Amino acid sequence: MSKEVRAVDWTGSGLTLIDQTQLPHRTVTMHVQDVDALVDAIQRLVVRGAPAIGAAGAYGVALALLQGRREGWSDDEIRAAVARVRDARPTAVNLMVCVDRVAHRLPEGLDAVLAEAAAVQREDIEANHAMGRHGADWLLERTGLDRPLRILTHCNTGALATAGWGTALGVIRELHARGRLEVVYADETRPLLQGSRLTAWELAQEGIPHYIQVDGAAAGTVLRGHVDAAIVGADRIAANGDTANKVGTVGVALACADAGVPFLVAAPTTTVDLATATGDDITIELRAEDEVLEWAGVRTAPAASRGHNPAFDVTPGRLITALVTEHGVLEVSAGQLPGDRAA
Amino acid sequence: MSKEVRAVDWTGSGLTLIDQTQLPHRTVTMHVQDVDALVDAIQRLVVRGAPAIGAAGAYGVALALLQGRREGWSDDEIRAAVARVRDARPTAVNLMVCVDRVAHRLPEGLDAVLAEAAAVQREDIEANHAMGRHGADWLLERTGLDRPLRILTHCNTGALATAGWGTALGVIRELHARGRLEVVYADETRPLLQGSRLTAWELAQEGIPHYIQVDGAAAGTVLRGHVDAAIVGADRIAANGDTANKVGTVGVALACADAGVPFLVAAPTTTVDLATATGDDITIELRAEDEVLEWAGVRTAPAASRGHNPAFDVTPGRLITALVTEHGVLEVSAGQLPGDRAA
Repeated sequence: MSKEVRAVDWTGSGLTLIDQTQLPHRTVTMHVQDVDALVDAIQRLVVRGAPAIGAAGAYGVALALLQGRREGWSDDEIRAAVARVRDARPTAVNLMVCVDRVAHRLPEGLDAVLAEAAAVQREDIEANHAMGRHGADWLLERTGLDRPLRILTHCNTGALATAGWGTALGVIRELHARGRLEVVYADETRPLLQGSRLTAWELAQEGIPHYIQVDGAAAGTVLRGHVDAAIVGADRIAANGDTANKVGTVGVALACADAGVPFLVAAPTTTVDLATATGDDITIELRAEDEVLEWAGVRTAPAASRGHNPAFDVTPGRLITALVTEHGVLEVSAGQLPGDRAA
Repeated sequence: MSKEVRAVDWTGSGLTLIDQTQLPHRTVTMHVQDVDALVDAIQRLVVRGAPAIGAAGAYGVALALLQGRREGWSDDEIRAAVARVRDARPTAVNLMVCVDRVAHRLPEGLDAVLAEAAAVQREDIEANHAMGRHGADWLLERTGLDRPLRILTHCNTGALATAGWGTALGVIRELHARGRLEVVYADETRPLLQGSRLTAWELAQEGIPHYIQVDGAAAGTVLRGHVDAAIVGADRIAANGDTANKVGTVGVALACADAGVPFLVAAPTTTVDLATATGDDITIELRAEDEVLEWAGVRTAPAASRGHNPAFDVTPGRLITALVTEHGVLEVSAGQLPGDRAA
């Protein structure tokens, strides 16, 4: 069962990651024993998805402590290593929140750090299951349809992107478990194809019928009436509901708003950053141009071309019908703000 | 000079096409001598772009006539061959219009057919230059900016997509020629990368600065204020202004409408189909799933996955700020309809 997939797990002396750059063709497990390797794994997207990065960062504090002991680091050197994990990617807030939470236990020693990281992991799984239930309840009630639903999603938000189960994909799994899911339209999610490689892999493992489509097809699929709702994840949610998520998300939201189709964001409350007032204040990671200009190491674009490669975009809160959290559903475009709830 | 590129040309005894599936790495010319080869070339996108397909189809009538003479076809067999060219792809109306126009001269013999096809080709080039002037005039006046413009485009609408010069890319070339172009954001245009392979190739040949971005980045690029206008081509324009164009176009239009950025369609009046009342009446070509599920012949998606691969989408006329034709500019979202103009 795909629900048993653990993108991030602790195995006594180090962190075990599924190398997501190798999926769907090869399921390769990587053992991470030091901070440099973890930072590299996060930056190369061996592990990706805001909650999964958060869990990896949580255990990264334990890695820093263990490596510090082996190599005789001072407390300041351990703190500096923890900070490098914390800053490995700039957009998702979960990484910073989870690292800070676990780092707070550093003075208590390794057992306390590992217990806190395990709590981060366990709570994320529990939150995902709760989101799945809340999101499915809301969708079935609000769409009022008595047939199975057709859902569009973007990027990967499943077990691979979280500590387990999934955020947006958790809602999709829950609908499937209730016999209320007809089909999923999965955007391929260029440039790194998290949709066609990872979401499709998880859906195939569950036996969930799905179509992969190019990202450019999403708006037309929505406008032509092929989907009943779209559900995505989030990397950072500002106090006003503006949401950073994988590049391409806001295009889906615009189409849904135009077509009157519900657009849902499913994310744990750790994704809400009250210190960020609006989407304008969110740092958007610009990744290497080669991700756009090459394919599998082979240049597809002319030599003179430059690439513009933002990893995320910002969906204004006004376009978000509902924010599904572990505590319940906020109707953002109708005026319920994450800041109100989380405050 | 890229303006000398001829995607489609007649060379005495047959049709010469640049094999656009090989660009930008190889410039391969293909000589087409019979109808089957032409239909195959159109369907495999050796030649693509609504006006270029129209020109190829125009000469296809001459090919059918010549092949019929060689192989002893009856008039009905020649007509049947012409019909196969006409139906090679369903969405773009130019192919049908151009084939019908030239086929009308069949009773007059080869010289008349070739003269008509050459007229189709020549008029398309003239129309493109006129569109370039009208579009650039309109943009410079309406944006009211005294600095060079930043333009977003989708797919390829240049010399490769037309008989020469280009539609939307013709407007971009004209801005560049006037010293009023800063940079082009070219959507890569999945699944076949006409943007990163073909548009970027044409822009590089002209020395026009450009960024290639994934299609999912387009909406965010517009919403973040990086572009002054978006310009695209069209495959079929309904009487009410609804416009079929390469999949991904309507997402750009939605973002422009949301951000208050002008969204222009540049297309010759042969693209207007008054027999089509609205976008709902336009047949959208569904292409092979493998285009989405594979890359260069290697499967990227799981074996169980299906692909949803519409080649086009429909942008409602209400989202189109201006339609640039060879006769002038219609402000569609403000109420000027192609049907009024072309009637």
